[in-house]
Amino acid sequence: MQDKLTLMIPGPTPVPESVLNSLGKHPIGHRSGEFQTIIKKTTEQLKWLHQTNGDVLTITGSGTAAMEAGIINTLKKGDKVICGDNGKFGERWVKVAKAYGLDVQVIKAEWGSPLDPNKFKAMLEEDTMKSIRAVIITHSETSTGVINDLSTISHHVRNHGDALTIADCVTSLGACNVPMDQWGIDVIASGSQKGYMMPPGLSFVAMGKRAWEANKTSDLPKFYLDLKPYLKTVQNNSSPFTPAVNLYFALETSLNMMQAEGLDSIFKRHSRHQKATQAGIQAMGLELFAENGCGSPAITAVKPQDIDAEKIRKLVKDDFDILLAGGQDHLKGKVFRIGHLGFVNDRDVITAVAAIEGTLNKLGLLKFPMGSGVSATLSSLKEN
Amino acid sequence: MQDKLTLMIPGPTPVPESVLNSLGKHPIGHRSGEFQTIIKKTTEQLKWLHQTNGDVLTITGSGTAAMEAGIINTLKKGDKVICGDNGKFGERWVKVAKAYGLDVQVIKAEWGSPLDPNKFKAMLEEDTMKSIRAVIITHSETSTGVINDLSTISHHVRNHGDALTIADCVTSLGACNVPMDQWGIDVIASGSQKGYMMPPGLSFVAMGKRAWEANKTSDLPKFYLDLKPYLKTVQNNSSPFTPAVNLYFALETSLNMMQAEGLDSIFKRHSRHQKATQAGIQAMGLELFAENGCGSPAITAVKPQDIDAEKIRKLVKDDFDILLAGGQDHLKGKVFRIGHLGFVNDRDVITAVAAIEGTLNKLGLLKFPMGSGVSATLSSLKEN
Repeated sequence: MQDKLTLMIPGPTPVPESVLNSLGKHPIGHRSGEFQTIIKKTTEQLKWLHQTNGDVLTITGSGTAAMEAGIINTLKKGDKVICGDNGKFGERWVKVAKAYGLDVQVIKAEWGSPLDPNKFKAMLEEDTMKSIRAVIITHSETSTGVINDLSTISHHVRNHGDALTIADCVTSLGACNVPMDQWGIDVIASGSQKGYMMPPGLSFVAMGKRAWEANKTSDLPKFYLDLKPYLKTVQNNSSPFTPAVNLYFALETSLNMMQAEGLDSIFKRHSRHQKATQAGIQAMGLELFAENGCGSPAITAVKPQDIDAEKIRKLVKDDFDILLAGGQDHLKGKVFRIGHLGFVNDRDVITAVAAIEGTLNKLGLLKFPMGSGVSATLSSLKEN
Repeated sequence: MQDKLTLMIPGPTPVPESVLNSLGKHPIGHRSGEFQTIIKKTTEQLKWLHQTNGDVLTITGSGTAAMEAGIINTLKKGDKVICGDNGKFGERWVKVAKAYGLDVQVIKAEWGSPLDPNKFKAMLEEDTMKSIRAVIITHSETSTGVINDLSTISHHVRNHGDALTIADCVTSLGACNVPMDQWGIDVIASGSQKGYMMPPGLSFVAMGKRAWEANKTSDLPKFYLDLKPYLKTVQNNSSPFTPAVNLYFALETSLNMMQAEGLDSIFKRHSRHQKATQAGIQAMGLELFAENGCGSPAITAVKPQDIDAEKIRKLVKDDFDILLAGGQDHLKGKVFRIGHLGFVNDRDVITAVAAIEGTLNKLGLLKFPMGSGVSATLSSLKEN
């Protein structure tokens, strides 16, 4: 039943009716006073969400556009950068950096393992000539459900003194604590279809003071993703190009909802759902893909044994109208991923675990008594 | 009354209820079979709209993003290009070309006048070394309400043999005939908030065979706007990055409406509304900004005498809930612009003319008997 589908993928995430109702309103002029009011208000709210006194700029485009903007607005051709790569998105930022002629040093970890902050520390400390201009990393690696230690890595970058931290926080912002200024992160990219509880189409680049300082010498060619005109226009509550007006209506509503809930409550909700999902999955004998203690608050990847993960995913959709995400690239068929990001409540988590448990039972693969998974999920929700 | 506002600006244009209803639906997974069906269908419909056998790629972004993509995917650093510049958008493509290190020759015309095709012919014929790689022009110059002779200019480009025609058809596509293949246009950029009758947020790049051939040697850096992954994925009814899913729902509905109306009817409707608007404006003693015979089918710029155009625009909004566009850059206060693009019917045109006439009367500036403008508009609609 298409109309009854519940999205439990890491984006698009479920969207509240009130946000959809805002989205479906008649557009207004993007140069009107009414629209300026929306830009002004949402810009302030975005700063609250990023816990920053820096600038948060809104781009019509995907999270990749925002991350690319962060990279190409702060660096020069030939600049040396370190890219962390432990999944599909880490890989992508390496590609972006290379596409613009940056000198890329890659620090890798296996898919499913987190990046080792000590490797960043060592490489940064060795750089006595201060030739490293930026460290580019993914906070929550959506492809594997692993959270990287952004706080520690950005601490090492600050100790280096010259390099910037450019962070993909697409599935962490609005799911767990990412205090941009406190952690000393210079650039954060995020996208609307994640913790923002909105459909895809808008993305956000937060730029701190050091990022703007670096921007002065940035020479990589750009136009649509040139952030200077975004900064100049947002200061007048405007935008350089025609923005996705209706998505701004949705943004206004979703940020109001987020502020009403409060950051701490949002982070606690995601943490509870992560724990409850993990508890349910493990109680029915399934293996988590992410290394112990490194699970993302946004998404849990599961590695079923003795069966194609896609088969479980298909049955969960067909029988229970719940859409899970599959594995990407070499993980296709090896893992499925449960999104518990954005507009998700306890019921969603319970039913996702129940649907997986029912599917395993149907396939004759359930190794524990029926109800073990749901029971563990309920207990976890009660305890946390 | 904000909720009763009628948009008569060149974008966002009015959006049908059925399109808004589609927009406000719950998002679905962008890698799902259901979404693939939408991509497949809309891609075919976009080819119909462009009258092309080439590829039409959909980007989440503004029309500028699409135009930039067309330029940076077909050219190499240092390539010599001719840019036509007779308004704000012509100016913009010069800036884009320069931002990427192209060798730009500009052919100018005054704002309000069309580009002279003979100047393009002469420059192309002089280029016996075939060093000109592209001619970049705006078909309908939104800032001035002037239509350029794209057909003749692209004919001269074809006679050159080597250069490409890269055309900004943002406010002409879906308003007047732009037969891409028949006219030999290599790249066409357009945006959703125009003839498509949709909110802003999606844009489209049509690429012909010669454009793809040029793409093979294109070396300008890009990632989000790199069209090769768009081509590769659209062939599997997919997209390289998370697209604005809900805007695709709207696109599907609007393209269905456009196909039901038919291209000829759409073009005729815009032509009738252009003539009726011009007739009404001139009958009340106001001057058209565009040179005689060069008016855009999408927008009519009006140059009132002895009064700040912004004052008329403000009163039309406050008294009649009709939003007109102002002048851009040095035309601010000198002209106002009436959009008759997209989801516009006879009633919209009649009321816009009536509102302007009523406003002139209120200001004591109406030089002809009250009703002259509306009467001329009604007659024009009857005759055409």
